[in-house]
Amino acid sequence: MDGRRTQGGAPTRRGFVVGGLAGVGAAAFASCAEELQPVRRAPLVAPGDVVLFQGDSITDGGRVRDGAGAANDLAEFGRGYAWLAAVGMLVARPDDGLRCYNRGVGGDRVRHLDERFERDCFALAPDVLSVLIGVNDLWHARNSASTATAADYEREYRALIDRTRAALPDVALVVCEPFVLRCGHVTDDWFPAFDDYRAAARRIADDHARAFVPFHAVFERASALAPPEFWAKDGIHPTAAGAALMAQAWLRVVDGGRA
Amino acid sequence: MDGRRTQGGAPTRRGFVVGGLAGVGAAAFASCAEELQPVRRAPLVAPGDVVLFQGDSITDGGRVRDGAGAANDLAEFGRGYAWLAAVGMLVARPDDGLRCYNRGVGGDRVRHLDERFERDCFALAPDVLSVLIGVNDLWHARNSASTATAADYEREYRALIDRTRAALPDVALVVCEPFVLRCGHVTDDWFPAFDDYRAAARRIADDHARAFVPFHAVFERASALAPPEFWAKDGIHPTAAGAALMAQAWLRVVDGGRA
Repeated sequence: MDGRRTQGGAPTRRGFVVGGLAGVGAAAFASCAEELQPVRRAPLVAPGDVVLFQGDSITDGGRVRDGAGAANDLAEFGRGYAWLAAVGMLVARPDDGLRCYNRGVGGDRVRHLDERFERDCFALAPDVLSVLIGVNDLWHARNSASTATAADYEREYRALIDRTRAALPDVALVVCEPFVLRCGHVTDDWFPAFDDYRAAARRIADDHARAFVPFHAVFERASALAPPEFWAKDGIHPTAAGAALMAQAWLRVVDGGRA
Repeated sequence: MDGRRTQGGAPTRRGFVVGGLAGVGAAAFASCAEELQPVRRAPLVAPGDVVLFQGDSITDGGRVRDGAGAANDLAEFGRGYAWLAAVGMLVARPDDGLRCYNRGVGGDRVRHLDERFERDCFALAPDVLSVLIGVNDLWHARNSASTATAADYEREYRALIDRTRAALPDVALVVCEPFVLRCGHVTDDWFPAFDDYRAAARRIADDHARAFVPFHAVFERASALAPPEFWAKDGIHPTAAGAALMAQAWLRVVDGGRA
């Protein structure tokens, strides 16, 4: 612990990327230039930090789950955005002794993170915790695997963060925006319901996070440059190009502002 | 033209990433943290700029060559690092009116760039020109398709840059380090010969470029985190993960320092 995140315990908005977008609709996300400004005031990821990626299948990325639990390990990281983001930091900062872990699990909703956070988060004592969760919360409600609503998502997500902050008072939280591409499984009638989940994640970020990574906004922009299928064939799971773009966005926001 | 690059015509080292590594051997590249610092003094890519990627098959990335010649077009950009780097800028800076082009051609050596630079560079009048060339200069010499040496490579490359600076006095040049991974076609006896090509590119960058992107150093680091085959199966052509890492490095150096 270097003490840099211990001034006050509860997070403030001072270290936050940019405010003022909570609650706005999709139109305001059409341009995400401002959102992709990195955190400038202080490095979010400091030398020696443990960085943990948490989430569902998008974070999972096909990782091996019965490994030794080693940091910075390709097999245990999978081949998704989390690995590409971790490698981006590890390559650019080889002397910083960063230890990166991936504990995403395919199919997870917020409640599943809650069930396994003791083992898959608190036990790792991350300095930086990046969470991407939400698409299954809506998807499973749509296909009748769940009766939960966007309000349930926000309530459960806030409870998970409260519990996390109690266990790890100094953790720097990165909230990632849930996203879908308009292709594959994702039909027009996913909207505006999906926007409620995005807005909930944004509100939680405003209240608790050091940074917000606007993945949906990024993919909306990217879909004007290449078909949505290029970024995520089924509308939900990124292709290699989609994962690359996510890693860029994550690094720009989280690691772009270091001194 | 915004005049920001017209103060003096010839480039100086003031805008350069970092000095002092020219002519050193592979050991000094073991850590590339310092090299990956972005250009901080001024944005290298300014609003309204034309950005051109030039090179061989690695830049080509399978692009369609009989298209309309439109900027920012996926088909005409291919699916390699150049597209991922261009999209990274276009998504993060949607209001900047950047126009990005790819004119890489598989199999090219420096002399082939020279043959087609009138059409494939000067006619596009780029504000920023990124060049990645060199691996074929050695590869073709090894397989007897050429008798050229590293000294020929440097001489031809310098002549190409001189000609380019005469045609485009204000162009901001980005020189990319040629790279190989130690797998596939690339056997141990590629070294130390290959280091001569890298060192030549670095010297040219020191003399003429606004930025140097240390791809070989990046892949050396990355090969400690995942097998070289993960980044480039045949040792020369990047996988999707390799292309993603290249785009990250390029963006960090070239576009990481903008205000």
